Amino acid sequence: MSGWLAVAGLGPGAEALVTPEVDAALAQATDVVGYIPYVARVAPRPGLALHPSDNRVELDRARAALDMAAAGRRVVVVSSGDPGVFAMASAIFEAVEAQPAYASLDIRILPGITAMLAAAARAGAPLGHDFCTINLSDNLKPFAMIETRLRHAARADFAMAFYNPRSASRPHQFARVLEILREECGPDRLAVFARAVSTPQERLRTVTLAEAAPEMADMRTVVLVGNAATRRVGRWVYTPRSAGAA
Amino acid sequence: MSGWLAVAGLGPGAEALVTPEVDAALAQATDVVGYIPYVARVAPRPGLALHPSDNRVELDRARAALDMAAAGRRVVVVSSGDPGVFAMASAIFEAVEAQPAYASLDIRILPGITAMLAAAARAGAPLGHDFCTINLSDNLKPFAMIETRLRHAARADFAMAFYNPRSASRPHQFARVLEILREECGPDRLAVFARAVSTPQERLRTVTLAEAAPEMADMRTVVLVGNAATRRVGRWVYTPRSAGAA
Repeated sequence: MSGWLAVAGLGPGAEALVTPEVDAALAQATDVVGYIPYVARVAPRPGLALHPSDNRVELDRARAALDMAAAGRRVVVVSSGDPGVFAMASAIFEAVEAQPAYASLDIRILPGITAMLAAAARAGAPLGHDFCTINLSDNLKPFAMIETRLRHAARADFAMAFYNPRSASRPHQFARVLEILREECGPDRLAVFARAVSTPQERLRTVTLAEAAPEMADMRTVVLVGNAATRRVGRWVYTPRSAGAA
Repeated sequence: MSGWLAVAGLGPGAEALVTPEVDAALAQATDVVGYIPYVARVAPRPGLALHPSDNRVELDRARAALDMAAAGRRVVVVSSGDPGVFAMASAIFEAVEAQPAYASLDIRILPGITAMLAAAARAGAPLGHDFCTINLSDNLKPFAMIETRLRHAARADFAMAFYNPRSASRPHQFARVLEILREECGPDRLAVFARAVSTPQERLRTVTLAEAAPEMADMRTVVLVGNAATRRVGRWVYTPRSAGAA
């Protein structure tokens, strides 16, 4: 029994943003498990079984991966970005909690370049001061909690990064998020809509909150909102290191 | 004139966590600029000039790097972790703002594995739900702002990541931070002290806020504090994906 489980972050899309640690785990794996488009990023090879699955079955997927590791397989669960940021690492530990026998398995979490940092790098340095990171999907939490967090984040003057801003199943919610942000931060606050960074579909757009519209985002978009000091310089957007600089 | 400037994140320490994109930039560079211990991580080679400099001279370093790029050199400014998280990217754009001629230079920001995500991966998935990221150094902001942000973050029930928790020049401040957190989050909230993750000096320690003590942190430590639902499972610490799960 030399099975193990690695939960690996593939980064935002480009091969050049996959860490050597993740490449090494994939090279040793017997099985790759994950959401269909992420498994599709792993090159097939003899001896490697690919197990793509649909979205929203994270716990089933976690259990299946743990079962294979327990049976002696070398399993990599792939997430895009970083596995610990709104991705598979938490689902794995939920499954371990429900089935304590799994806790003795060899489990490793392999970090990756998460979408907000790839987006920030492309835009300049909008997250260069204190910031917060919020998942706008309400599958797993009530919208009232999202609203509370938005208002606290704005009053703390955090820069903000939003994952999963918009989906077909809840088209109106992101409009409400933008309204709350305009109320709290004013119309001139800068926002960056960063879609599919580092892939051929990459698109970056910087607007003020007054100009921001829900349809600028889809599920491949990360939205970054600056703090009160965030500004443009040339084609870049950045947040100064010093809170006093205005 | 084919000079350029790349601001590159070297990740938390291990070679296996440096992206191929950053390696490629270093392979093409004529000059590497940065804080002494980060420049020391770059392998010397003929044709590569290393320019290590002391801490707290970020703006001078940024100007020197931009001047070299303007003079046709291929310059990599190195940060540990990610360059956009409390690192050199913001300083570069501050220098560009002060000297607009720099704005036409070929500047790229190359993301890296930031310390909080490397630490979270080692601990399990403590940042698996909404979280915030706060620099506790008060060189560049008043402590009152740190306190305001801590209280908002706690009331929003964000998990939290703290960079630069403690230094010789301000030994008492982190004690005050822990007091505020105990007040806001209660004594049982979990905290992870992660030092020098992915290096031979790595040390991870999980405690409750009641047990947390300032001397558990130094400037190579990132401190992660869970949200109200963060829990232990086996040797791991994780935050469930669902806000309802308690």
